[in-house]
Amino acid sequence: MSFHQHIVNLNRHDLGRFRPFFVAERKVGWVRHRIAERLADFGSVFDVGSFGVALRPTLATPAQRTDAVAETLSVLRDEGLVPPPRHERYAVSATLSEAPLFELDRAHVPVFGVLSTGVHLNGYVQGPDGPRLWVARRADDRAVAPGKLDNLVAGGRSAGLSPRETLMKECDEEAGIDPGMAARARPAGLVSYCLEADLGLKRDTLFVYDLEVPESFAPVNRDGEIAAFMLWSVHAVLETLRDGDAFKFNVPLVILDFAVRQGILTPDSEPDYASLVHGLRRSLP
Amino acid sequence: MSFHQHIVNLNRHDLGRFRPFFVAERKVGWVRHRIAERLADFGSVFDVGSFGVALRPTLATPAQRTDAVAETLSVLRDEGLVPPPRHERYAVSATLSEAPLFELDRAHVPVFGVLSTGVHLNGYVQGPDGPRLWVARRADDRAVAPGKLDNLVAGGRSAGLSPRETLMKECDEEAGIDPGMAARARPAGLVSYCLEADLGLKRDTLFVYDLEVPESFAPVNRDGEIAAFMLWSVHAVLETLRDGDAFKFNVPLVILDFAVRQGILTPDSEPDYASLVHGLRRSLP
Repeated sequence: MSFHQHIVNLNRHDLGRFRPFFVAERKVGWVRHRIAERLADFGSVFDVGSFGVALRPTLATPAQRTDAVAETLSVLRDEGLVPPPRHERYAVSATLSEAPLFELDRAHVPVFGVLSTGVHLNGYVQGPDGPRLWVARRADDRAVAPGKLDNLVAGGRSAGLSPRETLMKECDEEAGIDPGMAARARPAGLVSYCLEADLGLKRDTLFVYDLEVPESFAPVNRDGEIAAFMLWSVHAVLETLRDGDAFKFNVPLVILDFAVRQGILTPDSEPDYASLVHGLRRSLP
Repeated sequence: MSFHQHIVNLNRHDLGRFRPFFVAERKVGWVRHRIAERLADFGSVFDVGSFGVALRPTLATPAQRTDAVAETLSVLRDEGLVPPPRHERYAVSATLSEAPLFELDRAHVPVFGVLSTGVHLNGYVQGPDGPRLWVARRADDRAVAPGKLDNLVAGGRSAGLSPRETLMKECDEEAGIDPGMAARARPAGLVSYCLEADLGLKRDTLFVYDLEVPESFAPVNRDGEIAAFMLWSVHAVLETLRDGDAFKFNVPLVILDFAVRQGILTPDSEPDYASLVHGLRRSLP
């Protein structure tokens, strides 16, 4: 599998299976047709047409919208149409720079195809032969990507937390990185993708951070998400990534972005360099 | 002027003023309608329709296409329709990873709206307060952007030169960076934009390199392009960039990309961070 194939795989979607979702006259997401048709039964909450779904303007405040959507989804959950809530609230906006219009349980973010954001940390040790990257192996009991390889630290961004606050929290929970060390993590850009999943549409932006850690550092997982940590040469990481799907589905973007920024992948050595680099930050529909 | 406004300014274009340009059944560029209409008079070279312009398939080899196009353009040049040649050949491909279909004088690249590539080098000194960036002031007698601020090294990529070979050549000519030091420049990604100019359409990809230079380094220009060099804090560079158009038109993308990768601009401090970062690498039409 080429590096570019990972990007292609992460951006598979057919918008023909969805209709746009509007809140306060802004397009904020995409809903599967069969979900949209069921939402039509909740006429006080949703206005459903063949070309779109909108929250009723009578739901005028974020709190009203949040409660009305959650109540509807609890009915759909009992019918098995949507997954159970994860009791973590995500903020819903038309664009990442706008104020939230309402909040949605993390489990239901793809159901409405709204924008979501997370943070991923490349933890690395700098050496004479280039960087070595910390790679995490996810626990086998995880709902998402059990047993897959992951970045040293990664996590979704809950409502009310900034990217840096999310990073600090996840550094502590996932890898036992103390606040002093975590504060040295450097924001280095973002990657993005739009993936169709069974649940709906994942339109994700991952804020990328780099943290150079000392040789003596050893990560300690505190929240049960990670079963083991390994320190690999960046070349071993890239070979493993190229050879299959050992990594959690969205981690290849973060690692390829690191390899591009570090000059490991170069325009002279990679014939697909330009499309590879463009592919790491797809514009989201 | 906001950072984002620089990106907006660099991507202004109206494709309604152009029609697509095809070679060997691949779309390789865009031609202004008024140029296309004149090309229709050269029926052995161009097949011109209202929806497109194509090189005749009888021009079967890159050399045949290169010669036929150059001959046509010398006529158009005498009529004042296109600028004089700069006697530097650029390779024309449908995508950056494909083999060249023919070669075009650098001056005529925007006339056909074909993809072009260049290299830009961020030369910096690392210090306790963050990086300081070398800034070049272009000579007042330059045809392009006289007197404007520029990166330490920048240049277009001629046919037959790889990105790194272009960089090495420009490092020597523009800043007197010896091959040993230039070889330490690290590829760090790319930026791209599509700008409508009087001449036509500029669809440019700039391969970005970073080079940390010692405090003792002093650039020396050898080709007359640069009148002076200054070493500024990255914050001074960003302030100057934000405040107006002191920089050559495409340099802000390279500097903003550097500031993002270095963690100077952050998702917590820049409300527009995601659209800013996406804007640095626009997909080209």
